Amino acid sequence: MATTELSTFLGRWLPRVESAMREHLQTEEQAVAQHYGMMRYHMGWADENLTPQNYPAGKRLRPMLCLLACAAKGGDPAAALPAAAAIELLHNFSLIHDDIEDGDETRRHRPTAWKVWGIPQTINAGDAMFATAYAAMQRLARRGISAPMTLDALQRFTATCLALTEGQHLDMSFEERNDVAVTEYLRMIRGKTAALIGASVAIGALLGGASPEEQDAAEQFGIASGMAFQIQDDILGIWGDPAITGKAAGNDLLRRKKSLPILHTINHEVVGIELMTLLHRDFGVEELPAALTLLERAGARAYAEEQVRYYHRQSSDALLTAFGPQAKESMIWALAESLLYRQS
Amino acid sequence: MATTELSTFLGRWLPRVESAMREHLQTEEQAVAQHYGMMRYHMGWADENLTPQNYPAGKRLRPMLCLLACAAKGGDPAAALPAAAAIELLHNFSLIHDDIEDGDETRRHRPTAWKVWGIPQTINAGDAMFATAYAAMQRLARRGISAPMTLDALQRFTATCLALTEGQHLDMSFEERNDVAVTEYLRMIRGKTAALIGASVAIGALLGGASPEEQDAAEQFGIASGMAFQIQDDILGIWGDPAITGKAAGNDLLRRKKSLPILHTINHEVVGIELMTLLHRDFGVEELPAALTLLERAGARAYAEEQVRYYHRQSSDALLTAFGPQAKESMIWALAESLLYRQS
Repeated sequence: MATTELSTFLGRWLPRVESAMREHLQTEEQAVAQHYGMMRYHMGWADENLTPQNYPAGKRLRPMLCLLACAAKGGDPAAALPAAAAIELLHNFSLIHDDIEDGDETRRHRPTAWKVWGIPQTINAGDAMFATAYAAMQRLARRGISAPMTLDALQRFTATCLALTEGQHLDMSFEERNDVAVTEYLRMIRGKTAALIGASVAIGALLGGASPEEQDAAEQFGIASGMAFQIQDDILGIWGDPAITGKAAGNDLLRRKKSLPILHTINHEVVGIELMTLLHRDFGVEELPAALTLLERAGARAYAEEQVRYYHRQSSDALLTAFGPQAKESMIWALAESLLYRQS
Repeated sequence: MATTELSTFLGRWLPRVESAMREHLQTEEQAVAQHYGMMRYHMGWADENLTPQNYPAGKRLRPMLCLLACAAKGGDPAAALPAAAAIELLHNFSLIHDDIEDGDETRRHRPTAWKVWGIPQTINAGDAMFATAYAAMQRLARRGISAPMTLDALQRFTATCLALTEGQHLDMSFEERNDVAVTEYLRMIRGKTAALIGASVAIGALLGGASPEEQDAAEQFGIASGMAFQIQDDILGIWGDPAITGKAAGNDLLRRKKSLPILHTINHEVVGIELMTLLHRDFGVEELPAALTLLERAGARAYAEEQVRYYHRQSSDALLTAFGPQAKESMIWALAESLLYRQS
């Protein structure tokens, strides 16, 4: 079964990804110990005094997709390890800066880095993490990957860095607007969430020996999975079971988050203005049932679920092009499916 | 004469560096036009409404050193153009973030990007500029540079990115300290200022066909020049002619800047405490003569000038190792000398 096989794979490779990342976040030089310590703090490897700790970390989904894609193309995951580490370092660089940009004060139940060390030092520590991501990528040659192949991987990596900033730019600019269209939202999550998942799979496939066409299909699989995953997250943000998600019912409404179901309703020609008016008032828990009724009338949930199915079909088609007819039995598909059908 | 030859070279290659950079800061996609526009604004190519303009730009010293180093090793500067553009883009990424980190509200007589678009969007635009620097580097292959050589250049580039963040980390941490030693200060400017100048020369030499030893010597030349240049700047920041520097006499004292002459005096066993006490009070123009007397008693100017001579000798030695016995007649030396002996 792909799921037990997947657990074994994750158990074997997760620690190796962690060590590959750790190599880049250490320094022998006392003068800059805090600079590197800040990065380790963000990763969950140190507390505020930079004493080593092991706080619960992220799922490391992206590096795992990279290694699985490499393996699915018949490559040795060990060869892709530097890229897997680089992708997760890049993801974490973007989290460090996003936390500043969004003013988020906690992450994984700990103060964000900027809350501990202030904004100036934390912008700079994020920049350093960005640079270590490239340092990691450039180690591919040490794993026997040829120079031209390493450059191909770097090409995809850099395009993704730019896509990430484009997505974040759009996300921030939406906060100041009341007229965000659903297509604009989809463009935003493509950059902010889906692009890096796409790159993880594409770079893994590339390093496993995939043809350029297969790499593109692998990227499409990752992008479509990322889109489905984000929209599923948007659904849970409103209709998810609080006992499972750990968030209040209607949480995204209370936060006035411009998620897909909310944007769909705001743009609805009949109930749009009603929801907008409601959200602009002093919106609280008492107004929640009224808002949920408006979403219902706009068919927001059905619409979002249809979008999830659409991207899920896209991802499934691209998967077969990238990884062949047996790919539905692969660990990579099992991992993607487990993310989509999670409840929290 | 190397200086007229240099003017011809700059006149020929500066516009080409500008176009190479411009290629990366454009987009066809309307949705993210502002994101790329912010970067063009910082470069002096657009105003706040993103209307094309040509404001006075920086000296583009680093990309010129890169092209000159390539030419000095017998290479075609055109081959190094992507690296030259990348180096200047990287320099400007660091300026965008430094302006936020230091709270600087103007640069070249215009509001800094964060003053126009706010901190969150500007952090993100800086990140995009960082990514475009890599995109530029990766174009070396299109200029006929081999994949292994491109990776060697990227290796130096990434190490320099990290060095920049280390320097900036130290610079910011010094602001909160009263016990900064001169050696710590030298370590800081090595990262913040000298490292990228070193990389500019080393990468240019590499692309021109220099051996690894010559590349290292080229880097040492650039680093030592950068150190001399920064310390010379520190001297001008206190004793420079206001009519030429455009800054008040004793400007760095008034700003309580921890520059080399000031740190030397603060650490002086006789007058150190006196200067510290003076600077901690409500320090203004009236206190300036007293402070200058203390710097004089500590021999601060003579010390700083001796340091400039020391790094200048180092740079001269490394130059000959990197570029051969005729290198003192080269344009690269002429450019380095012109920077050191400037008055503003």
